[in-house]
Amino acid sequence: MKAIKVGILGLGTVGGGTALVLQRNASEISRRIGRAVEVTMASVRNLDSERLCDCSQLTLTQDPFEVVDASEIDIVVELIGGDTLAKELMLKAIGNGKHVVTANKALIALHGNEIFAAAQAKDVSVSYESAVAGGIGIIKAIREGLAGNKIELLAGIINGTANFILTEMRDKGRTFEDVLAEAQSLGYAEADPTFDVEGIDAAHKLTILAAIAFGTPLQFEKVYAEGISKLSLTDVAYAEELGYRIKHLGIAKNSHDGLELRVHPTLIPSERLLANVDGVMNAVLVKGDAVGNTLHYGAGAGAEPTASAVVADILDIVRSIDASPSCRVPHLGFQPEAIQSLPVKTPDQFESAYYLRFDVNDVAGVMSKLSAKFADRNISIESITQKEPSLGQDFVSVIFVTQRTREGLVDQAIESIESMGDVRADAVKIRVEHFD
Amino acid sequence: MKAIKVGILGLGTVGGGTALVLQRNASEISRRIGRAVEVTMASVRNLDSERLCDCSQLTLTQDPFEVVDASEIDIVVELIGGDTLAKELMLKAIGNGKHVVTANKALIALHGNEIFAAAQAKDVSVSYESAVAGGIGIIKAIREGLAGNKIELLAGIINGTANFILTEMRDKGRTFEDVLAEAQSLGYAEADPTFDVEGIDAAHKLTILAAIAFGTPLQFEKVYAEGISKLSLTDVAYAEELGYRIKHLGIAKNSHDGLELRVHPTLIPSERLLANVDGVMNAVLVKGDAVGNTLHYGAGAGAEPTASAVVADILDIVRSIDASPSCRVPHLGFQPEAIQSLPVKTPDQFESAYYLRFDVNDVAGVMSKLSAKFADRNISIESITQKEPSLGQDFVSVIFVTQRTREGLVDQAIESIESMGDVRADAVKIRVEHFD
Repeated sequence: MKAIKVGILGLGTVGGGTALVLQRNASEISRRIGRAVEVTMASVRNLDSERLCDCSQLTLTQDPFEVVDASEIDIVVELIGGDTLAKELMLKAIGNGKHVVTANKALIALHGNEIFAAAQAKDVSVSYESAVAGGIGIIKAIREGLAGNKIELLAGIINGTANFILTEMRDKGRTFEDVLAEAQSLGYAEADPTFDVEGIDAAHKLTILAAIAFGTPLQFEKVYAEGISKLSLTDVAYAEELGYRIKHLGIAKNSHDGLELRVHPTLIPSERLLANVDGVMNAVLVKGDAVGNTLHYGAGAGAEPTASAVVADILDIVRSIDASPSCRVPHLGFQPEAIQSLPVKTPDQFESAYYLRFDVNDVAGVMSKLSAKFADRNISIESITQKEPSLGQDFVSVIFVTQRTREGLVDQAIESIESMGDVRADAVKIRVEHFD
Repeated sequence: MKAIKVGILGLGTVGGGTALVLQRNASEISRRIGRAVEVTMASVRNLDSERLCDCSQLTLTQDPFEVVDASEIDIVVELIGGDTLAKELMLKAIGNGKHVVTANKALIALHGNEIFAAAQAKDVSVSYESAVAGGIGIIKAIREGLAGNKIELLAGIINGTANFILTEMRDKGRTFEDVLAEAQSLGYAEADPTFDVEGIDAAHKLTILAAIAFGTPLQFEKVYAEGISKLSLTDVAYAEELGYRIKHLGIAKNSHDGLELRVHPTLIPSERLLANVDGVMNAVLVKGDAVGNTLHYGAGAGAEPTASAVVADILDIVRSIDASPSCRVPHLGFQPEAIQSLPVKTPDQFESAYYLRFDVNDVAGVMSKLSAKFADRNISIESITQKEPSLGQDFVSVIFVTQRTREGLVDQAIESIESMGDVRADAVKIRVEHFD
């Protein structure tokens, strides 16, 4: 059978890695799919840069539109990132009747609905396994492997940089700022780390996971996102003493009265597998009504782990390239006409348990006054811990862990407590999930 | 579009669960695949038994051949188990041009090569996701999600009964016999537990995983299998003290000089995720040359987790049912003509680290004499630990943990040590894997 020709937009880390994996594993790949897959063209910013892959058989160009318009190219792999030029190129490729593979989570999260509709109209596939959690294969697992389930919950460590920072803070007692600086020097974090540490990157990924889990449109604007930049070593250590670990999670829940779509630091019981996913690794817990809890773990970034997902997408496309589009998995895992909007909850409607720390003057009766504020709102308390003042401190920390309740009630209790005379700084509120 | 009609052979736990999940999630499923999937027939042993599912719309028969021969049935789901009648029924279904889904690991491991050839000749699919690790989706992950990789290693906790027993032994200090009796009363273990505790069930599953990982024929007869029935609490506790946990693993490795296919208790560093997979849960670690280590975790058995995998297989078949067979994933993940036999190593050729316990008379110089037997064979020692005798014991236990070496050399050292005057009982040898 005729070889399938691939053009890559962007031959940096992931692009170079993709070409390298396709070259190195060419014989394994053709044993699997029964035909050859060749990278024949790539667009690059600089023609003379060093590459991960062998470029001797590739046509390199500085004009990405040349790749997108090349008649020989069957599949365009978009790896330049961003959501303006990348979008234009992708729509052009689709318009030209080419299948597209992308690792661009921002583009899919923000413009996926439009892009998928365009692809649908032209009977081509846009595949994006590599956009979420790199090599893990979570998109395929949810869209296909768990297709018999009604997905109830998913919760993922889906930003390796944030997980690396949290792991170092816990293991070595280092501050957020200290670890971030190291992560930047190691290349794990961007010079502008906002996307990683403020939860925006995780929110892009959660947007995608939620849409394919529940069959809803992509709706990034409805995701609540909170990062790790305000997390203190104090709470990391207290959480540990209470038997929890703090992980930065993207959580999507489908309950009877709407969806919760939220990204934030979360206390998880330390014996859970998810609590033990360390460093730059990613993992996603998916709970289906039939299967129960599953966990999918692996490298979320890096040249070859990401390439692994890009190549898997390419091979899926190749398998169905000459077949009727009906044999392909729909872009969001549900038939386009079956995509349904569901109400998305605001933070005050979230249901969770909560870790709450208050710094208070060490006066008699303060703990019972604080407790009363929770009792007033029917919030059950799992545990109360009072921490003796460190040397030179003239206040004590009181930590409440609540049972599951509605966040609006917790916020009311906090507001009421903060207005009390003996309470010092702003309260610390971190959500707690048990996943049992 | 016309509804797809499914006939189930065997309406017990998994069969009833499959019909139940298809019924309960019917609307979710048709949102996904754009057509209805209906169970219309099932064969049962007893027409009057209680069922998990609603049978009001089903034709029940005591003759499974009636289902296999029914012209209305598109997909036959084989859930009766065993490898004689089940094989006959499956070949008949294939001969009738029907697609088949099965959870029967023994049948696939022992007769898969023949069955897949028959299916290939009739252009139908035989899907078996539920045969390995229930709802996890490991077959799809390896055949499709990791298809860009050369798989180097896989290691799985793929027998829930054995894992439940080991977890209880470690957590509660209970003996193998004690926990086995409980597992039997809970229904986790069969009345004849041989398949589970002697590693045969795990060997069936490893046979399947190895074939799809490496593109080799199914070759159950070449898998080395060792169970957990001889494992003592002493070694479970000593392993723990040394920083390891003992798990019963199926391991398949592809090294330059051949395959290792082995099932046995294994010491794993206790901080590894795989070491923390407890109770009846399953997990499979897969290492690909591009992706690195991935881990896939979930329930390995039970009505609905297994049904989750059965339904996923059905939906995959439905998607391509009207399309050319070329768009389907080949049965073993590789084109039939690309399946290659590779040499399989015998145990003396295995490469691993080893935990070795010798009970010896407490006389001066015995440890150095033992150590010399390893040095003679260039086996490097990671650690030596001498355990003081318990009350009433007149011997000491000496535990060696070796570095990676060849098993034949270790066996020579053991033989030589066992022939020494001061050595008591048979040595204990347990393989150690670090998975780093």
